[in-house]
Amino acid sequence: MGSRYAIGLDYGTNSVRALIVDVADGREIAAAIWTYAHGHTGVVLGKDPNLARQHPADYLKGAEVTILEALATAARDVPGFKSEEVVGIGVDTTGSTPMPVDADGIPLALDPKWSENPNALAWLWKDHTGWAEAAEITKLAADMRPQYLAKIGGVYSSEWFYSKILRCLRVAPEVFDAAYSWIELADFVPGALSGTLAPGKFTAGICAAGHKAMYNAAWGGYPDKEFLGKLDPKLAALRDRLTPRVKDVSAAVGGLCEEWAKKTGLSAGIPIAVGAFDCHLGAIGAGVKPGVLVKVLGTSTCDISVQPNTVKLADVPGVCGIVDGSVLPGYFGLEAGQSAVGDIFNWFVEYVKPTGLGHVELTEEAAKMKPGASGLVALDWNNGNRTVLVDQRLTGLLIGHTLYTTPAEIYRALVEATAFGALTIINRFEEYGVKIDEVVNCGGIAEKNAFIMQLYADVTGRPMKVSRSAQTPALGSAVAAAVVAGVYKDFAGAQAAMTGLKDKVYQPDPAAHAIYSELYAVYRTLHDAFGTAAWQGNLADVMKRLIDIRERTRA
Amino acid sequence: MGSRYAIGLDYGTNSVRALIVDVADGREIAAAIWTYAHGHTGVVLGKDPNLARQHPADYLKGAEVTILEALATAARDVPGFKSEEVVGIGVDTTGSTPMPVDADGIPLALDPKWSENPNALAWLWKDHTGWAEAAEITKLAADMRPQYLAKIGGVYSSEWFYSKILRCLRVAPEVFDAAYSWIELADFVPGALSGTLAPGKFTAGICAAGHKAMYNAAWGGYPDKEFLGKLDPKLAALRDRLTPRVKDVSAAVGGLCEEWAKKTGLSAGIPIAVGAFDCHLGAIGAGVKPGVLVKVLGTSTCDISVQPNTVKLADVPGVCGIVDGSVLPGYFGLEAGQSAVGDIFNWFVEYVKPTGLGHVELTEEAAKMKPGASGLVALDWNNGNRTVLVDQRLTGLLIGHTLYTTPAEIYRALVEATAFGALTIINRFEEYGVKIDEVVNCGGIAEKNAFIMQLYADVTGRPMKVSRSAQTPALGSAVAAAVVAGVYKDFAGAQAAMTGLKDKVYQPDPAAHAIYSELYAVYRTLHDAFGTAAWQGNLADVMKRLIDIRERTRA
Repeated sequence: MGSRYAIGLDYGTNSVRALIVDVADGREIAAAIWTYAHGHTGVVLGKDPNLARQHPADYLKGAEVTILEALATAARDVPGFKSEEVVGIGVDTTGSTPMPVDADGIPLALDPKWSENPNALAWLWKDHTGWAEAAEITKLAADMRPQYLAKIGGVYSSEWFYSKILRCLRVAPEVFDAAYSWIELADFVPGALSGTLAPGKFTAGICAAGHKAMYNAAWGGYPDKEFLGKLDPKLAALRDRLTPRVKDVSAAVGGLCEEWAKKTGLSAGIPIAVGAFDCHLGAIGAGVKPGVLVKVLGTSTCDISVQPNTVKLADVPGVCGIVDGSVLPGYFGLEAGQSAVGDIFNWFVEYVKPTGLGHVELTEEAAKMKPGASGLVALDWNNGNRTVLVDQRLTGLLIGHTLYTTPAEIYRALVEATAFGALTIINRFEEYGVKIDEVVNCGGIAEKNAFIMQLYADVTGRPMKVSRSAQTPALGSAVAAAVVAGVYKDFAGAQAAMTGLKDKVYQPDPAAHAIYSELYAVYRTLHDAFGTAAWQGNLADVMKRLIDIRERTRA
Repeated sequence: MGSRYAIGLDYGTNSVRALIVDVADGREIAAAIWTYAHGHTGVVLGKDPNLARQHPADYLKGAEVTILEALATAARDVPGFKSEEVVGIGVDTTGSTPMPVDADGIPLALDPKWSENPNALAWLWKDHTGWAEAAEITKLAADMRPQYLAKIGGVYSSEWFYSKILRCLRVAPEVFDAAYSWIELADFVPGALSGTLAPGKFTAGICAAGHKAMYNAAWGGYPDKEFLGKLDPKLAALRDRLTPRVKDVSAAVGGLCEEWAKKTGLSAGIPIAVGAFDCHLGAIGAGVKPGVLVKVLGTSTCDISVQPNTVKLADVPGVCGIVDGSVLPGYFGLEAGQSAVGDIFNWFVEYVKPTGLGHVELTEEAAKMKPGASGLVALDWNNGNRTVLVDQRLTGLLIGHTLYTTPAEIYRALVEATAFGALTIINRFEEYGVKIDEVVNCGGIAEKNAFIMQLYADVTGRPMKVSRSAQTPALGSAVAAAVVAGVYKDFAGAQAAMTGLKDKVYQPDPAAHAIYSELYAVYRTLHDAFGTAAWQGNLADVMKRLIDIRERTRA
C-alpha cells in the first residue's frame, strides 16, 4: 500500500493554514498559509474597541488557496505524491465565531446586500460587543437554570454564541430577522466542504456547541425555549432552527463534495471530520491525555485537559467548559484559557512601539534581567480574563514603574504576567482534583521563544515541554481526519503514531522560582483585589514589597 | 538716576541660569543657561535607581559662565548697559541638596582625593538612597519629638538633609569623617559669592533649614543633640558644626567678594541675598500672597502658599513644611509638591520612547482626545509621592489599558494623573483652612503647554493663571536681590513692581470637569488603596467604572 495523507485546515485569528500530514507517522510534508483579505490583518474593527468581525468570504477563499498551494508544494517536494493519496480532511477554527446564514446555510455576508454590514459578518471570538448581553444571560441562568452555569465556569462570556446573537438581535434586528439561523465557523467550513450546509443536513461539533452554546445531552441539547424566550422570544424561535445533529470529532460530517473536489483536485467523497476549536484539536495534536495539560500559546491561550467520562468530576469554578467529548471521544474536555498572551506582547510592540525595539530586541534585553529586578508587576488582562475570573470587562494594570523603567523591563513584566496567569489556571485545576502531571506547550510562542518557555518553567516551578509539531491544531485536525478515514480505530492509536514531544525540556531554576513565588503573591493580591468582589483588604504594602524584591535582587 | 539691575541665579536639576532684571519693572533684559558638565545632563547616576548626585564644581563654574554670558548679552542688547548698574544678586537652588565640606567650607569633592567618590558629591534633591534612614528618623521623631513632625507633614522624607547625611555616615563613614560640616546648595552659592563659606561666617536660609533640617526657633533651632544622638552620636556632634546663623531672604549674607568681582566684572560688595529653594523664590516671582497658590511646574512641582504669621495655623497633614519666613518674611510658608510631573512625561518619551513621538507629537494627539475616552487612569508616583502621602517608596501605576491603547492615550493619562495629584494638594490645603482663591502657574510647563494648563483647569475646576515671567525662580531671586539692595522697603512693594500675570487665563470646561470628577474618584480610590495603610475596601469595580466612562464618552 502506498503513502496516505490527511489535510488539517486551521483557521486562526489572522490567517488560515493547510497542512498535509503523513498519517503513518505525523510527518508534515507541506503547508500553506493565507492571511484573510478583509480588515486589519483579517479582522474588521470598529470605533467600539469591543468590536472584531471577519468576512466569511475569507474562509472559503482561504480553504481553496491554501489547499491548492499545499498540494502543489507536496507535489514538488515529495517524490510520487498524488492528491488521491489524501484520505480525509479535518478542520479547526477560532471560536465562538458565529455568523448569520440564510435558509440555504449561506452566510448573509456573501449577499451583496449585507456584505458591508459588520453585524452580518462573522462575530470573531474576541468580539466583546455583547458584554451586556452576556451579563444578562449569566443573571438569567443563575436565577432560572443554575445547571447551565455549572459547566461553563459560572459565567457566560461575551465571547460566546448567544451573547453575540442576542447582541445582534438588539442592535441590528434587520440582520437577525434576515438570518434563517446562525452557524459557528467550526461547523461552517466542514459544512461547506461537504456540501451539507443546508438546514437539516449540517452537523455541529460538540466542542463549539458544548463549550459556547450551553449544549448538553443532560438537559436535552440547547438551552430550553422557556429560558431563551425570557431573553427574547425570537431567540426561543431560533432554537428550532439550530441543527440538532451534534457530534464529536470521531464522526465525519460527510464526504468532500464535487464542487470542492473540482476546486482542489482532491478526491470527491473523502471524509470531512466534524470541526472543533483550534485549541481542542491542538491539544490532540500535542498528545493530550489524562494528567497532561496542553497549553496552546498564541495571541491568546487555551489550556486543555481531559478526564475519563466514567469518573464523576466536580465543576471547576472559572474553568470555561467541561463538556463530554469536546476534545477526545469518551473523555470530559476541560477548557481554560487566557484571553490574551501574545496579543499583549504585540500590543506593546505594535501600539506602544518603543523605538527600534521589536520582539527580538525586547526579548534579548529582557532575557538578561533578573527576576524581580525591575520592581514591576502587571496583570495580563488587556483583553479581559477568561480563566479563572471569566470577566471580559477587566483591563490591564502595570505597577511599580519609576522614572527609569525601560521598555524591556515592561516587556518582561508583561511576559511574567502571562506566566502568573498560566500558574493561576494550573492551580485552579489541581484545587478541584484535576491533577496535572505534565505541561505540554504548543503554538507559535512555545515553538519560537525559549525565553518565554524558561520563564514559564521558573514561574510555575514545573518543567515545560514542547510539542514536536509546530502546527498542533492543524496536526490535530489531520489526526481527526485519519480517524474518520479509518486509518486508526481510535484517537489514542492515532496520537501515539502521529504526535510527539521535542527533546528540549525547560527545567525550572529553583532560585528564580523562589523570587517568582514572592512576585506571584503580589500578582495574586492584585488579581483578587481587582478581579473578585469578595476581596477585602489593603494594598499599601504592594509597591513596597516590589521595591524590597527589586532591591534584594539587584544587590 | 540711571537704570538699576539685579541678577537672579537659578540652579535647576540639569542647568543653572543667570537672569538680569530691571528692578524698576521686572523687565528681563538678558539671560544665560549652562548645563552641568558632570553625569547624565548634570546628574551623576549609579546602579541603585535611588542615587542622584551632582558635582559641586559645576555650581561654581555655572555661576561664572552664566553671569559672564548674561552680562555680555545685556551689554550687546541694551544700549548703555553697564555691569556697575547691577545692584545685587539673589540665588535659588534645588533642595534639599546638601554636600559635605571641609573646615574651610570647601566641598570635599573639589579635593582630587574625593572628587570621584559619589558620596562626597552633592546629594541631589531627588536622591532617595536614604529611604531607610528617613523611616528611622520619622519613627524616632514620632516616639520622641512629635512636634518635629507636625511642621513637616508627619513624615521625614528621604529627600531631606539628615536622611542623606545619616545615609552617608552609614555607607561611607570615611566621607562623613572627612567632612567638617554639611551645607545646602542654597547656602553654598551665596557663601561662595560672598566669600563667607568658612565656619562661623556663613549664613543658612530659613527656607532650607526650616523645611528640610527641622530648624525651628520654637525648639531652639536644629533638632536637639539628644534626638540626633539616638540616630548616631556623630550626628549629635555634627550639630555643633552646623551654622547657627539662619535668616530669611530679606537679609544679605554679605557682599560680592573681590575674587568673584574680578571673575565677573560686577562691583565688589553688592549684596548677595540669603539663598532659598527655587520654588520658594519662584513663588515670589509669581506674586505669591495669602489666597494665592503658586504652582512651580517643572520636572517636579512645588506648590507654595503663605499665611500671615500673626494667625494661628493648623498643621496640615502631608504638607511638607510650614515654616515662618521660608517664603516671604512675616508669613508662614507652606510648601507642598509632587515628586515628579515633567519627569513622568520625560520618562515616557525618553525611556519608553514611542516611535517617532516626542512631547510635541504626543501632546498634539492627546489634545484631540476626550476626557475619559481612553479608559485609563494612572497614579503620578513614578518618583514617589511628596504631598499628601510623603512616601518616596511609592511607584507608578497604570490601569485600564487594552490591546488597542495608544502612546498618546497613555501620555494623556500621565498628564491627567499629575492633574489629579495637583487637585489632591489643593483639596488638602482647603480642608485645613488654607483658602485658595487663585492658582498661578509658572515654570516650563505653564509657559509652553496650553494643553496641560487647560487640562489642569478642567480637572481642578478652577481657572489656571500663568505668571508673566517665564523664569519666576530667577525673577524671584532678582526680587530678593532688589530688596536686599534697598531698592524696595519690602517684598510686597518689590513684587507689585516686578511681577505679574499673563493675559491668557485657562477657564475650566464644565463638561470636561464633570467627567474628570468621575475619574478623580477612581484616582482617589487607587491613591488611598495603594497609599494609605488605613484604607480598607474592594477594587473590583475600578476597571468597570473606567470602561463605563470610556463607553459613555466615546458614544
